[in-house]
Amino acid sequence: MKRKLRMGMVGGGQGAFIGSVHRIAATMDGKIELVAGAFSSDPVRSRASGKDLFLDPGRVYGSYEEMARGEAALSPEDRIDFVSIVTPNRSHFAIAKTFLQAGFHVICDKPITFDLREARRLRRIVEKTGKVFALTHNYSGYPMVKEARQLVRRGKLGQILKVVSEYPQGWLIHPIEKEGQKQAAWRTDPEQAGASCCVGDIGTHAEHLGRYITGLEIDSLCADLTTFVEGRRLEDDANILIRYRGGARGVLTASQISVGEENALNIRVYGTKASLEWHQERPNELIVKHPNGPEQIHRRGNSYNSKVVERATRLPAGHPEAFLEAFANIYLEAARAIDDAVSGRKVKEYDFPSVEDGVQGLAFVETVVKSSRSKTKWTKLIRT
Amino acid sequence: MKRKLRMGMVGGGQGAFIGSVHRIAATMDGKIELVAGAFSSDPVRSRASGKDLFLDPGRVYGSYEEMARGEAALSPEDRIDFVSIVTPNRSHFAIAKTFLQAGFHVICDKPITFDLREARRLRRIVEKTGKVFALTHNYSGYPMVKEARQLVRRGKLGQILKVVSEYPQGWLIHPIEKEGQKQAAWRTDPEQAGASCCVGDIGTHAEHLGRYITGLEIDSLCADLTTFVEGRRLEDDANILIRYRGGARGVLTASQISVGEENALNIRVYGTKASLEWHQERPNELIVKHPNGPEQIHRRGNSYNSKVVERATRLPAGHPEAFLEAFANIYLEAARAIDDAVSGRKVKEYDFPSVEDGVQGLAFVETVVKSSRSKTKWTKLIRT
Amino acid sequence: MKRKLRMGMVGGGQGAFIGSVHRIAATMDGKIELVAGAFSSDPVRSRASGKDLFLDPGRVYGSYEEMARGEAALSPEDRIDFVSIVTPNRSHFAIAKTFLQAGFHVICDKPITFDLREARRLRRIVEKTGKVFALTHNYSGYPMVKEARQLVRRGKLGQILKVVSEYPQGWLIHPIEKEGQKQAAWRTDPEQAGASCCVGDIGTHAEHLGRYITGLEIDSLCADLTTFVEGRRLEDDANILIRYRGGARGVLTASQISVGEENALNIRVYGTKASLEWHQERPNELIVKHPNGPEQIHRRGNSYNSKVVERATRLPAGHPEAFLEAFANIYLEAARAIDDAVSGRKVKEYDFPSVEDGVQGLAFVETVVKSSRSKTKWTKLIRT
Amino acid sequence: MKRKLRMGMVGGGQGAFIGSVHRIAATMDGKIELVAGAFSSDPVRSRASGKDLFLDPGRVYGSYEEMARGEAALSPEDRIDFVSIVTPNRSHFAIAKTFLQAGFHVICDKPITFDLREARRLRRIVEKTGKVFALTHNYSGYPMVKEARQLVRRGKLGQILKVVSEYPQGWLIHPIEKEGQKQAAWRTDPEQAGASCCVGDIGTHAEHLGRYITGLEIDSLCADLTTFVEGRRLEDDANILIRYRGGARGVLTASQISVGEENALNIRVYGTKASLEWHQERPNELIVKHPNGPEQIHRRGNSYNSKVVERATRLPAGHPEAFLEAFANIYLEAARAIDDAVSGRKVKEYDFPSVEDGVQGLAFVETVVKSSRSKTKWTKLIRT
Repeated sequence: MKRKLRMGMVGGGQGAFIGSVHRIAATMDGKIELVAGAFSSDPVRSRASGKDLFLDPGRVYGSYEEMARGEAALSPEDRIDFVSIVTPNRSHFAIAKTFLQAGFHVICDKPITFDLREARRLRRIVEKTGKVFALTHNYSGYPMVKEARQLVRRGKLGQILKVVSEYPQGWLIHPIEKEGQKQAAWRTDPEQAGASCCVGDIGTHAEHLGRYITGLEIDSLCADLTTFVEGRRLEDDANILIRYRGGARGVLTASQISVGEENALNIRVYGTKASLEWHQERPNELIVKHPNGPEQIHRRGNSYNSKVVERATRLPAGHPEAFLEAFANIYLEAARAIDDAVSGRKVKEYDFPSVEDGVQGLAFVETVVKSSRSKTKWTKLIRT
Repeated sequence: MKRKLRMGMVGGGQGAFIGSVHRIAATMDGKIELVAGAFSSDPVRSRASGKDLFLDPGRVYGSYEEMARGEAALSPEDRIDFVSIVTPNRSHFAIAKTFLQAGFHVICDKPITFDLREARRLRRIVEKTGKVFALTHNYSGYPMVKEARQLVRRGKLGQILKVVSEYPQGWLIHPIEKEGQKQAAWRTDPEQAGASCCVGDIGTHAEHLGRYITGLEIDSLCADLTTFVEGRRLEDDANILIRYRGGARGVLTASQISVGEENALNIRVYGTKASLEWHQERPNELIVKHPNGPEQIHRRGNSYNSKVVERATRLPAGHPEAFLEAFANIYLEAARAIDDAVSGRKVKEYDFPSVEDGVQGLAFVETVVKSSRSKTKWTKLIRT
Repeated sequence: MKRKLRMGMVGGGQGAFIGSVHRIAATMDGKIELVAGAFSSDPVRSRASGKDLFLDPGRVYGSYEEMARGEAALSPEDRIDFVSIVTPNRSHFAIAKTFLQAGFHVICDKPITFDLREARRLRRIVEKTGKVFALTHNYSGYPMVKEARQLVRRGKLGQILKVVSEYPQGWLIHPIEKEGQKQAAWRTDPEQAGASCCVGDIGTHAEHLGRYITGLEIDSLCADLTTFVEGRRLEDDANILIRYRGGARGVLTASQISVGEENALNIRVYGTKASLEWHQERPNELIVKHPNGPEQIHRRGNSYNSKVVERATRLPAGHPEAFLEAFANIYLEAARAIDDAVSGRKVKEYDFPSVEDGVQGLAFVETVVKSSRSKTKWTKLIRT
Repeated sequence: MKRKLRMGMVGGGQGAFIGSVHRIAATMDGKIELVAGAFSSDPVRSRASGKDLFLDPGRVYGSYEEMARGEAALSPEDRIDFVSIVTPNRSHFAIAKTFLQAGFHVICDKPITFDLREARRLRRIVEKTGKVFALTHNYSGYPMVKEARQLVRRGKLGQILKVVSEYPQGWLIHPIEKEGQKQAAWRTDPEQAGASCCVGDIGTHAEHLGRYITGLEIDSLCADLTTFVEGRRLEDDANILIRYRGGARGVLTASQISVGEENALNIRVYGTKASLEWHQERPNELIVKHPNGPEQIHRRGNSYNSKVVERATRLPAGHPEAFLEAFANIYLEAARAIDDAVSGRKVKEYDFPSVEDGVQGLAFVETVVKSSRSKTKWTKLIRT
């Protein structure tokens, strides 16, 4: 890289948790600087946020449309290279479309759009504009998740037979959406979140994690969605049986009413030769089990890790890394792609979730809802 | 107790693993002595086994029928009080019936019988004879499982919403039933094991554990059974969605092809107020989680445990107990009941798995098989 | 074995915890039966205990002297083969001497005697009588401790450089010896326990464990003993630096005032090629670490364990064993030796703690006390 | 804050691990920007490093002296606010002195200086200049370490009786200093590292951690330093007994030859009411144990944490944080102090390691060396 990439941000104003996460992740490695933003649909709040971030007031906009126009009007030496979209998913499509068509690359929070229809349309726009589009399925940024994927790819597990993934949380055990908790309010509102709460918000992370590690594609699934909290409009618990193409089986559970669980995403993958296990809350450890040998705990920063892990790691062994570093890995890899695009270099293989992952994620969500509504019958994955 | 109870054993001859477990469990607390046995259907092997056990050759029989007759013919001061049945489940019904009708109490390995029909018939015989019948669902003998049950009963978890239980093993990843492994041979043979391998052998343990801890009854279930190993005649993997009466949800998985797993039975129970988690391979720990407090690890032998746990424990805190002690707790509690019966004392409440648990277990197995054969549809639990 | 060995017990009457542990351990494998006892120095209590244990009243004695005489007077077909001594250590010497000289083998709780002087005298008596003498340093009975020893012996760790062992407990944080707690009362009383409380009671277990696993001999040590609870007459906390012959270093800590710790004995052994780690409260796991490979967790019941472990294990992998089974392993191995002696078979190599281990243990205790009294200077291990 | 603070860096050029850690930590929260540097004593390398970091070449200097002069000559609106010193400790004193006297605040890597004499002199300079001086004992930046400190301060542990801290690593098991490994070369060289390798490099972290959490001051200590690797010039293993003022006892071990250990810093603190335990490799968990209650695992991001923890945390519960975030907490707190100084605000209480901590750390190192050389006798902590 010859210079830092210039990032603009849509959303993520004062009080928004995920905006701060994206900013830390983006700038952690010194390759990206935040130079512009439309941090809120309320221009006053947007400006206040820009001030907190020490931005040039001239680059803080009252709306994303204004920002797209304003930045496009700047000279190539000044204007942003890409935009980071950190609003709720309802507005992703319109924002992403606007910036892509204005010539900017896009990094976008998940889920990609409001529904599958929009996701498919966005995919066409990405293809047509040829811009970089990265989706922050951040859990795939963890080094030991990448190591898990490598172990599968290199055949260390043999043929994959079974995938068990879980994502239990407990924060929605009470109807806090009625007590003004904003995070809960939009996620449980079908007009804002779409067809699903629990599966859309966290189930898709588990789905993406399984796909990222194993490469398996879902053939059909059988889902049981439940709304435990009275009066809630979308499901807060999901239990799903999965059949993969090729015969492997899966179980995926997600829950927001599992009291006492914080963010306990975990996955186990069983193959004919070995199995592996990873827990998000202890992310530096990858457990590998063989039929005739002791259980192994692989850790980052060691010579026995694959090269891919080395590239996704900033610290030596025993110096733990965590959520923000994994998130930053998504940005770092997207930045490689954007820098290649900016510099006119040949496209390489990149390791970040793409628009296609977003489409697959929403196909999963909508198939789950369909299966559950059909009184939980086996349902083929909706074609994308 | 005025004297040791006298036990006879059917099955469990030389080379049989589970016979030795039952003998250690039965005699651990010095309340029961082994005095007779029909250890094998081969009289020569039976006699050799009796010799290994230092038994009076006159009390070692060539068949269970001979034993029932022989013991019944002895004076009440000499003859066995009860029989322990440790043969494969195919022969349980006939043996149990014979001894019950000859006036003996029975402790029986699980699954209770070959199929639900036999189980129902056995239940009638138990009721009619009025004898004690205990089933060794041994995992419910663990002190911290009993503590879990107490926490639920005392309302510490609030209303139960979700139960996740798993029983992964990896020992059947290869077709070892074709290489003469006896344990594998009968379990994978429908003529010997019945309608199911994986669910009958280990899934029922998970089912019983969930029922024992929560008291919840299954309303309906939706099962996906898979036979991964080519040529195997029964399933070696099971994934089951459950709906309990009253609205709680469940996920139960069992597997014999989960490579690298030893005997990893575990359960998590989520209520409106708290949740709990227990792992068989670390049995002295019960994890309890509350929404607004630190995770807790409860351990045996402490003053904060309930009285029930105290009674099921032999050692002070920090001195771990394990599988055999839990197994012995089933025997100890059954011995209380047998001693009460022998002494003509009033029947109290006992804490051991009963013939009813056996019937429920087979209803579960047969419903699972039915659901899976129906292309995995939700299926009502078969009435018992 | 042609018959069960016959055991007598001295001590272990009603209310005594350790007597029950010894009885379960002794009889667990069906090779030993309890036939006689002097369970208390109070004849009435002794008889009541014998009744609880369903013993022949004629074999329940009012004192150990009476028992030694009584049993010696019986015919060889009836009398006990060995005595198990489970009284406090103050009386071990006299009891052991009496039974050894009366021709009986002895299994004795630790510490072996009141002081080193007695231990040396007992060693001479054992040598002279040629009887079997086993000391129940029970933690060396754990299968994974035996595996640890094998790994060291087979050179898997290279040259041993450092041994860190810890035995923290918290039960003596309050002066419960003044509130009538019997276990605390005698252990904190120099007239009963000898020169040390914490080191004698639990520090010696850590010392023996280190010696058992590594074979290293202590050259000198530097100890800091502290009595934290006011008015207590012996130390309740010990921190000790160790230099082994050959240059290895050690740290051994023991404590009875480490609040919240139950029985957290653990050891780490560091060699030039690998290191290992074992925790008594999770006894089925042995952690092995290599410089250039993933951490390994070895577990019992697996094909990768050494033969020695197999012999010390009763259950398949994943079926945990614990304290009582480890204790029983000491009895099982001592029973092999006693049976060989009884049968006049040639003496083999046995794997149980010997009178020599007892002597070494008291030399350690007395050196620690000496070092601490000398204002904690490096002190050579007292010659034994 | 009205603007980002401007940081310069001395050291940390291409290939230096710790420079990158400091840069990420400093800039993570968007309050600090790197604007200048003397990244190497080799001007060519310094310039190449500056280019990698996208710095204005006019602000990249060939030496620290040049940088101090150059920056001081800039207008107050442009020049750096503070310098971050990330060279080996041998040069800390001269660099820190130069910048402090030139009017700049200083953040400095540990150990603070080459020896205690220099540390005392630096303390006087800091006092005289009145500038902010922060030392990056980064492990005290972890939220759960801060929580541990709060629990002690609020009396939750009662009176502290015992502190056990360990810092085992294995990376120096071979003489890699002779094979050109730079990190090993200077740390094992008394001309560069000073009187100690293992204690200076990592033992001081354990010492600081204990002091930070408990507030206890060392009265005297008794150390056993060992050089296990042949030909090495400084110790690679340290075992230390400690007596604190007021009667508490401590054990501190540090090692660089503990094969298989990565960076396993951990600490246990035992009080009369409760104890706590923290492991650097699982930093989001703080274990708290009470005598009559279940073990507790406290985690970041929860309502039961103290306010101090909240301020040191960037993510909600279950989203793990790690080494870099803890390091950033030191910078964040130092930045508060620098901003207050720059803005002329009144000095508040700050939570970062100070020059006094650096002096105490070197007094500890030099007392340890003195004790060990005196054939390991109890040695009073050198007065500072």
